[in-house]
Amino acid sequence: MKRGFGSDNHSGVSPEVLEALAKANSDHALAYGDDEYTRRLEGLFKETFGEQARVYLVFNGTGANVLCIDAMCRSHEAVVCAETAHINVDECGAPQRVVGCRLLTVETPDGKLTPDLVRTRLHGFGFEHHSQPKAISISQPTELGTLYTKEEIKALADLAHSHKMYLHVDGARLANAAVALGCSFKEMTTDLGVDALSFGGTKNGLLMGESCVLLNPCLWERDRSGANSQTDDMKYRRKQMTQLASKMRFMAAQMEVYLEVKESKGQKVKELWRRNAEHSNRMAQLLCSELQTLCHSATLPLKIMYPVQVNSVFAQLPREVWRRLQERYFFYDWDEEKDVVRWMCSFDTTEQDIYDFIHALRDEIHKFKI
Amino acid sequence: MKRGFGSDNHSGVSPEVLEALAKANSDHALAYGDDEYTRRLEGLFKETFGEQARVYLVFNGTGANVLCIDAMCRSHEAVVCAETAHINVDECGAPQRVVGCRLLTVETPDGKLTPDLVRTRLHGFGFEHHSQPKAISISQPTELGTLYTKEEIKALADLAHSHKMYLHVDGARLANAAVALGCSFKEMTTDLGVDALSFGGTKNGLLMGESCVLLNPCLWERDRSGANSQTDDMKYRRKQMTQLASKMRFMAAQMEVYLEVKESKGQKVKELWRRNAEHSNRMAQLLCSELQTLCHSATLPLKIMYPVQVNSVFAQLPREVWRRLQERYFFYDWDEEKDVVRWMCSFDTTEQDIYDFIHALRDEIHKFKI
Amino acid sequence: MKRGFGSDNHSGVSPEVLEALAKANSDHALAYGDDEYTRRLEGLFKETFGEQARVYLVFNGTGANVLCIDAMCRSHEAVVCAETAHINVDECGAPQRVVGCRLLTVETPDGKLTPDLVRTRLHGFGFEHHSQPKAISISQPTELGTLYTKEEIKALADLAHSHKMYLHVDGARLANAAVALGCSFKEMTTDLGVDALSFGGTKNGLLMGESCVLLNPCLWERDRSGANSQTDDMKYRRKQMTQLASKMRFMAAQMEVYLEVKESKGQKVKELWRRNAEHSNRMAQLLCSELQTLCHSATLPLKIMYPVQVNSVFAQLPREVWRRLQERYFFYDWDEEKDVVRWMCSFDTTEQDIYDFIHALRDEIHKFKI
Amino acid sequence: MKRGFGSDNHSGVSPEVLEALAKANSDHALAYGDDEYTRRLEGLFKETFGEQARVYLVFNGTGANVLCIDAMCRSHEAVVCAETAHINVDECGAPQRVVGCRLLTVETPDGKLTPDLVRTRLHGFGFEHHSQPKAISISQPTELGTLYTKEEIKALADLAHSHKMYLHVDGARLANAAVALGCSFKEMTTDLGVDALSFGGTKNGLLMGESCVLLNPCLWERDRSGANSQTDDMKYRRKQMTQLASKMRFMAAQMEVYLEVKESKGQKVKELWRRNAEHSNRMAQLLCSELQTLCHSATLPLKIMYPVQVNSVFAQLPREVWRRLQERYFFYDWDEEKDVVRWMCSFDTTEQDIYDFIHALRDEIHKFKI
Repeated sequence: MKRGFGSDNHSGVSPEVLEALAKANSDHALAYGDDEYTRRLEGLFKETFGEQARVYLVFNGTGANVLCIDAMCRSHEAVVCAETAHINVDECGAPQRVVGCRLLTVETPDGKLTPDLVRTRLHGFGFEHHSQPKAISISQPTELGTLYTKEEIKALADLAHSHKMYLHVDGARLANAAVALGCSFKEMTTDLGVDALSFGGTKNGLLMGESCVLLNPCLWERDRSGANSQTDDMKYRRKQMTQLASKMRFMAAQMEVYLEVKESKGQKVKELWRRNAEHSNRMAQLLCSELQTLCHSATLPLKIMYPVQVNSVFAQLPREVWRRLQERYFFYDWDEEKDVVRWMCSFDTTEQDIYDFIHALRDEIHKFKI
Repeated sequence: MKRGFGSDNHSGVSPEVLEALAKANSDHALAYGDDEYTRRLEGLFKETFGEQARVYLVFNGTGANVLCIDAMCRSHEAVVCAETAHINVDECGAPQRVVGCRLLTVETPDGKLTPDLVRTRLHGFGFEHHSQPKAISISQPTELGTLYTKEEIKALADLAHSHKMYLHVDGARLANAAVALGCSFKEMTTDLGVDALSFGGTKNGLLMGESCVLLNPCLWERDRSGANSQTDDMKYRRKQMTQLASKMRFMAAQMEVYLEVKESKGQKVKELWRRNAEHSNRMAQLLCSELQTLCHSATLPLKIMYPVQVNSVFAQLPREVWRRLQERYFFYDWDEEKDVVRWMCSFDTTEQDIYDFIHALRDEIHKFKI
Repeated sequence: MKRGFGSDNHSGVSPEVLEALAKANSDHALAYGDDEYTRRLEGLFKETFGEQARVYLVFNGTGANVLCIDAMCRSHEAVVCAETAHINVDECGAPQRVVGCRLLTVETPDGKLTPDLVRTRLHGFGFEHHSQPKAISISQPTELGTLYTKEEIKALADLAHSHKMYLHVDGARLANAAVALGCSFKEMTTDLGVDALSFGGTKNGLLMGESCVLLNPCLWERDRSGANSQTDDMKYRRKQMTQLASKMRFMAAQMEVYLEVKESKGQKVKELWRRNAEHSNRMAQLLCSELQTLCHSATLPLKIMYPVQVNSVFAQLPREVWRRLQERYFFYDWDEEKDVVRWMCSFDTTEQDIYDFIHALRDEIHKFKI
Repeated sequence: MKRGFGSDNHSGVSPEVLEALAKANSDHALAYGDDEYTRRLEGLFKETFGEQARVYLVFNGTGANVLCIDAMCRSHEAVVCAETAHINVDECGAPQRVVGCRLLTVETPDGKLTPDLVRTRLHGFGFEHHSQPKAISISQPTELGTLYTKEEIKALADLAHSHKMYLHVDGARLANAAVALGCSFKEMTTDLGVDALSFGGTKNGLLMGESCVLLNPCLWERDRSGANSQTDDMKYRRKQMTQLASKMRFMAAQMEVYLEVKESKGQKVKELWRRNAEHSNRMAQLLCSELQTLCHSATLPLKIMYPVQVNSVFAQLPREVWRRLQERYFFYDWDEEKDVVRWMCSFDTTEQDIYDFIHALRDEIHKFKI
């Protein structure tokens, strides 16, 4: 299938990832994460997110999100999230089945929660008939390609903590957010009070690289049987929910090449996550500006729905046009009724891909206008 | 870590697997299994297991086993299995948490169920206080390295079907069983009446290659809402239990290179699964015979616990010896109290590895005897 | 505690219920529903709801609702309901924990779903990332005291069936709805296409009388293992979710006295459910009219929020007034922010109770106005 | 159905229970346990079991057992119990479905665990592939009518605590054990280190009286979110697992009349639980001695399987005899293959009932011998 704009997981993987796999493929390593690759990665996560960070590698974003929720909530508790949140819409009810908890959803204009929106769900504390709100979950960037500022995240963390709740970030595309905001991963999570993070790399050039990262020690240092029994339940929980990999070195090796800072000839080389995310974000900007130029010249009523902040463009355009275009390129209609479609750029999108796509779109507009 | 005898998932992957990944890494592919690699693989499974076979790729053996159980049982039903079964001992309760069902365990001398042993658990049908037996699950080979003959499997399948139950095979190492029995995968499953199969390749040279294979159409053609609504719930179930991969082409590509029959210069080349399994089985035979020679000459009371039929050797020997040997090689004590340890050969075990190991063992015996 | 307007489950039980318990208390009876009382009751439910009705007695409304949902949906499926639905708001997440499914909630002006509102949730069929809509659940009367007409229920049933979905009615107060609509239970459920019903009596004078009633044979005649194995999973599911009573005769006896038609001196005597519900509905009418009179004369800005159709009155009035009144009478603020409170009448509410309550309210208004 | 020996829940209820229900049936009471009856009962449980006792009323024994397990274990943990334990055999997998945990069963000669038997299941601590043993559960009396001495319970409690585990007692018939052992409830639970107790009255003359009693404050004072947030999750857990009663006063009133010490004319009157249990135990003794006499005189090979310590008699006798007797009296074959049947006495069993039963048995023996 030719390169298109269907999703950032339609792309393959960065060459560095295959190299890392090949390099990790020597001799034996203990299974299930008791290997040197995973040990080294745990150190790398501490460097990246701060000393208190604990990382649990998992297979996919669903696993990362469900393990994070499981770390924060018991089944009688609830997670406040946007109606558009991936955990609400796109996990086929995995949090409900695996954790057994409720999601308290809030309608939002742009996929972003605010303290005021969250507060509409913060009631019934202490009332046994109601699931107890225990976590706020946001996606950064959101499923609509919008971004929270650091201040906005801080405000939600403060709100959560003032209610003895936790703040979770679904960071399946956190790299795209980081380069857009121009800050480090730590500055946009740990430093703001984020408690749990789903950190992913699969959508940004890895083959399979997802993780549950706990930033708040309360989440694993639960005292469950009296004064002297601090235990970490997490490793059992990951295993029991079917998310423990046997040859984990091959997952750790990918994540390592994704995060590590290298030097070449005395010069710091940009990390893989940064290079890939910068590229896909830039391609989305190019796509956006080309769209605007095209529509201006073609006087087509095409509307960019949200500010293009990361690697996706949501556009509203005449049904006949996007339907015809779908016969040439695979992409999702996001809201069929409102004629909104989603186009995503990937780490491997080229400028030529965009010009070709714009060309095809111009073509369809032309046919439409006749 | 140097090569040893800890587990067949301590090994890396076959070079062919990395080649397959590299080859699959071109252009875009739809995510979540809607890609040509997965389509092709589905055909390959039909060729391998018969036309009615349906394959659902998952991440790991736990996922394969739990998805198979989920296909066969609802939460009020139960699976009869050996006490030593992986689903009972080594999944941290995943079937209980994810499916919510009971396992009815039976003690066995050698890890193998028999119709007579199973019958001890077949009671309480129709009595609402008892979980209803709905499946029999066996491991082929067993966790103790023993094998079921085809006749034995057939007898269990017949017993299951006569009670409207299903037969499941945990085939995490099915390749080792197939080469040992000298039959095809189909001859040892579909043809005998096996209904559901966990088919794995990770322990035999793949990076990540596990699957739930349904061989009985009843398992997906459930009529749940009246005459006209045959539906396949499986894809939702896999997703909801967190086992759906996004870049699935890279899992399909591995399994394809594992199963496919190639030709070179007009000659059929052995499949990867066969080459790897033949090798690891042969290495276990070598290890076994070297052990016997050594112990005979050293007059050490070392006992091989079970017939060595696939790639593992279970041995009983003096505690001081195996404890000291563990300082030089990583391996598991299988039954610490009875001084039984497990040594496993892998696709990458060399004859030299075995001679070195025997040498080290001789060394420790020598020290022990002084 | 004196009689008040807090809830219809703050009342005790009708004398007939204690008589029925005493009458059932003779000799022995098989436990768990294998007794003559339960057999007789099953016949009575067939008389009441039609020949295809199957009743499963449970302990409470939560049990009835969860068992109904469990009969209709598997964990990857979803129930469409109003945001205000009891199953959504007041079960502490029981459907999520016990069934593992999602609820797809819809905002409503008055607690009532309409086909148009439901349709906003009917998408994603066949898409494995989305929970599959499988049931619509309505409360009759709703939690806001409003009623569906028979036509409205029929329209929802038709919508459900056209999507191979089921219609569930939470009838914790179905008696109040029946007398208000002037129709039989069957006319408002079975005859309209309702598939599953939570039928309760506890809020209408029973000590403990709740049930899951299946009206659509598809819900228990699931063919789960091929052509010849129609089985009823329901009894196991009830037991496994902890809802099977041992001395069930005492639950059946209550429900029997609630439903049965008696004759006295050749004259049909009204059923207990009817007498009790007529009374509590009438008391709510009286309360409503007294409130209107009072507010008119006292020029108090008291607003009756919804049409008073059954036994509850939702009123909006100044905070100081309802807060002070709460010191004299226990009742719930329904929406604290909007100053809406709920007053419920019960089978044992007397006219004098209402006059006393109005008197107290007049008192508080007087203080407030000064 | 005439009185027989099928089960102690085939009997009705003590007259005192109906009186208590009638007495509680006046005016209004808050629902869900916020009433004066439940408050008073909570005090009564503290008097009975010690100041730290917390009681949670539930509907049935399944509910009590599952809530206790839920208080002790998370889903990745496990409960060690006898293979014959009610939680293992007779709950249709409720612990697995509702809590999601494993039961680690041990074969026993007489239904009783010993420290040595339990130790066979205490391994794998810290190993993420194994469910972590977290509780020991015993039934007192056992399902076979045998009793633990106080010393035996203490030894199990000590073993549990030395592994940071809990000890649970399934006390569905604890009253029968208490009168047999001649000690108070507290002496046989709290004083020995029991952590959680399923305390039941339904089998001993109540209509519906079961409870989860926590005796170890660690079970509710879990610090789950940092230093200052001791919370009691229990009330939410009970609600979410469908076990919260609305008109709870009627359950509290029963349990109160069961436990309370009354005086009449300056004399302490025996508590209802004690009178009923003493009676049913005595009847079992009578049945046992009559059986022995009969079999001696009739030279029938009838064997009493276990010491008759409470209200049940397990007997082995010729199949033709017990099968014929079942046509006259309902009772369970306990082990059909071994021709073992169970006869249970109840609070309402009369001496005449026993003589009649013996008469019928003599009759069948006579026919059998011809």
